[in-house]
Amino acid sequence: MSAVFDFPKWMSAHLNHIEQHLIQWVPLNAPAQLGESMRYAALDGGKRLRPLLVMATFESIPSKDSWREQAAMRAACAVELIHAYSLVHDDMPCMDNDVLRRGKPTVHVQFGEADALLAGDALQALAFELLTPIQSSIPDQLQAQLCRVLSRAAGYAGMAGGQAIDLASVGQSLNAEQLQEMHRLKTGALLLSSVQMGALCADIDDEAAHHLQNFGQAVGLVFQIVDDILDVTTDSSVLGKTAGKDAQNDKPTYVSLWGLAGAQQQARQLREQAHESLEKSKLSHTLALNALADMVIQRIK
Amino acid sequence: MSAVFDFPKWMSAHLNHIEQHLIQWVPLNAPAQLGESMRYAALDGGKRLRPLLVMATFESIPSKDSWREQAAMRAACAVELIHAYSLVHDDMPCMDNDVLRRGKPTVHVQFGEADALLAGDALQALAFELLTPIQSSIPDQLQAQLCRVLSRAAGYAGMAGGQAIDLASVGQSLNAEQLQEMHRLKTGALLLSSVQMGALCADIDDEAAHHLQNFGQAVGLVFQIVDDILDVTTDSSVLGKTAGKDAQNDKPTYVSLWGLAGAQQQARQLREQAHESLEKSKLSHTLALNALADMVIQRIK
Repeated sequence: MSAVFDFPKWMSAHLNHIEQHLIQWVPLNAPAQLGESMRYAALDGGKRLRPLLVMATFESIPSKDSWREQAAMRAACAVELIHAYSLVHDDMPCMDNDVLRRGKPTVHVQFGEADALLAGDALQALAFELLTPIQSSIPDQLQAQLCRVLSRAAGYAGMAGGQAIDLASVGQSLNAEQLQEMHRLKTGALLLSSVQMGALCADIDDEAAHHLQNFGQAVGLVFQIVDDILDVTTDSSVLGKTAGKDAQNDKPTYVSLWGLAGAQQQARQLREQAHESLEKSKLSHTLALNALADMVIQRIK
Repeated sequence: MSAVFDFPKWMSAHLNHIEQHLIQWVPLNAPAQLGESMRYAALDGGKRLRPLLVMATFESIPSKDSWREQAAMRAACAVELIHAYSLVHDDMPCMDNDVLRRGKPTVHVQFGEADALLAGDALQALAFELLTPIQSSIPDQLQAQLCRVLSRAAGYAGMAGGQAIDLASVGQSLNAEQLQEMHRLKTGALLLSSVQMGALCADIDDEAAHHLQNFGQAVGLVFQIVDDILDVTTDSSVLGKTAGKDAQNDKPTYVSLWGLAGAQQQARQLREQAHESLEKSKLSHTLALNALADMVIQRIK
């Protein structure tokens, strides 16, 4: 198995598949500018890390009913829509006031603030629309479970809560624990939900799901540490967004807390933890998950 | 039955019940200012028309399992959270730039724009959290159905889509059909979803649900016509929000289209249609629904 697994090919095929579904599901024909702004925000850009995590987790046990795969693709796109909406709102002038995202003008620069606000709101609703298709072979039980996981990951005890801490922390001195709590909610909750939703779609047993949960938490944390590292080591043209914003905004980061070498060391340790969690899960097909964890730490943007 | 139905008592009891549940469900302890801003936006104010519609529809056939009533209360609060979030975002400077709502400073005036944006985002997610409780006796099937209805009513083909038309229509001349389409989405979709969710929780049969659907559509339209009438006939202190905004912003309204008398006439006709739809539904307990339709047309703010 190991010898024949081609991760770049796996990723390319899945990225293509995810993009095709987003193109299908993010509406062309929403009223006024809404469809255009939603598609601008959600299509043709981004690493698609969250959807890839859903699909890799889903595939960690051998394939099964086609409705399960349909559910996983819906979950993959739904979590990406939540992520996309959060970027649109974060970039707005009242938040981070960013003008560049994925190398393009941000949504509010392109469409105006009011349309950006609405596009974000509609993308959040669309995530739950995707999870609850009309006349589908996906059982209602699974649909409800996915909505349960995603709504909590997006809400006050997840991403939105982390954003609130982030907002309140500008100019504050946070210790490692507080910084970790912020990122556990702000970025970690959605990454973890990707793994949880993939596991739900595949009907993975509780014991393995527990280890996948640990894997998801480690990946979430390493993701943010690497983000902080990249913010100080990479320039805007490579990053595709404005670099050095955190230091400029006097925001606490893992680099400001541990120094660059310390942050890099922590990231490597967490990668090891992620790999160990996958081993403990005893799942048969974890090569894509392992490769995704490596990709998160090795990424250059 | 008719002789003993006391609508003010019914409404007072239900408003109290709804408020108690919102107080319980909108989090006190969300990170940083998030809990406070969410509660400011969602508690202690508003007509609660949408939750009352859910509960009145739910009660239009005699009472049944307690989990059905729990589901109805969750749906009632969830639709109110969607409504509350939309008001927070609508009031922001990049949209309507309103400083007064329900006689209080708007959320962005009280907490700042960034916190208002986040509070709205978190309220939308919370709506779907309420509909998908962990370890509940509400069947997953009903949970999924409620998420299905509410997400579509909130999203691009519902409220957010209507907002997009509204944004694009400033300074434009809309005909009656276009104006109606805007309001069918912007306000009507959420009011209709209230009736639909109440019917789902009560397991009302398709024939009756069809007539309830007509009832919900008529109430949604009359609501907006009355809103337009009040905007020109009432001053800000009574309205609890800034009056005359629509004319000031050069927005098309039913009054600008039909004149004041014409709009009042249309509202009365729609009320009759609403009452007739309830009669046709042959449901046994429609006095609260009838009274709510009357309340919508008779309201002074």
